[in-house]
Amino acid sequence: MEPRSGCPISTAVEVLGDRWTLLVLRDIIFADRRHFRALLTESIEGIASNILADRLKRLLDAGILSRGGTVIRGQRARFSLTEAGIQTVPIIVALGNWGLDWRAGSDELRGRQQLLRDAGPAFVAEFMDELRVRHLDAVPKPHTGPSPRERLDAASQRYSSSE
Amino acid sequence: MEPRSGCPISTAVEVLGDRWTLLVLRDIIFADRRHFRALLTESIEGIASNILADRLKRLLDAGILSRGGTVIRGQRARFSLTEAGIQTVPIIVALGNWGLDWRAGSDELRGRQQLLRDAGPAFVAEFMDELRVRHLDAVPKPHTGPSPRERLDAASQRYSSSE
Repeated sequence: MEPRSGCPISTAVEVLGDRWTLLVLRDIIFADRRHFRALLTESIEGIASNILADRLKRLLDAGILSRGGTVIRGQRARFSLTEAGIQTVPIIVALGNWGLDWRAGSDELRGRQQLLRDAGPAFVAEFMDELRVRHLDAVPKPHTGPSPRERLDAASQRYSSSE
Repeated sequence: MEPRSGCPISTAVEVLGDRWTLLVLRDIIFADRRHFRALLTESIEGIASNILADRLKRLLDAGILSRGGTVIRGQRARFSLTEAGIQTVPIIVALGNWGLDWRAGSDELRGRQQLLRDAGPAFVAEFMDELRVRHLDAVPKPHTGPSPRERLDAASQRYSSSE
């Protein structure tokens, strides 16, 4: 895919303007699915295997993911977000905020997004720092209380268990 | 297109996770192209006529655009953003910010995005208010100096004329 204009919005949507690409990123970012099999079998939208393979390849080619770590015999490739990948978080959060307001959805899947919105940009930045620790081996910053990821997981569970 | 999960990110990308959809929205939002012909002939990415027609229909069906105003003989339909459409602005700004950092692009098309980023969320909110005046007949808020749109247009021009 060649960029057809140098507009920053256009060059961004060249790689990110695709439904499945954004859903794969969501699952890596929020559900910490790092292997092909987990991304395939745990996908709530039921992504097809060939689509997943294609989108992972595109994300690797675009430098949004890397295939990291030592490959151990019998163990599949593990995907990591690059810094460019971690910086897609504000885009995905903005999409979720819009979905919250303008699209019908099920309550149990809205808790996480509600927290992302209510807690605001500082929380999103903190969550991105936590992703840097997980994906880029960054040194964790000291913090007290539950981490952003723990708070997000709790927000998801609170809603699903209250059904 | 049926939503395949109730996750707010997923329901959003059902309608917005498409390259051409996002570029059409960009041109309506930032370049104020309100008619089919302008969207077709002024597209810097060279959108095809059938793709444009399809994406406009999807945006109308999703309630992101409306086909507004009185239809005068010999005058084509004029598209307006709905409130849901105006609220896609933060998504498109987030995409452009990412493109600015992570994709190569031409300088003359980066000035507008640079201003959007430097001026920050308050400026984006002010620009959305200006869109409400233009697209939803909202009452203009009093302000002094150039409007957000005027500042964005100047930022685009500054770069193209300095080449």
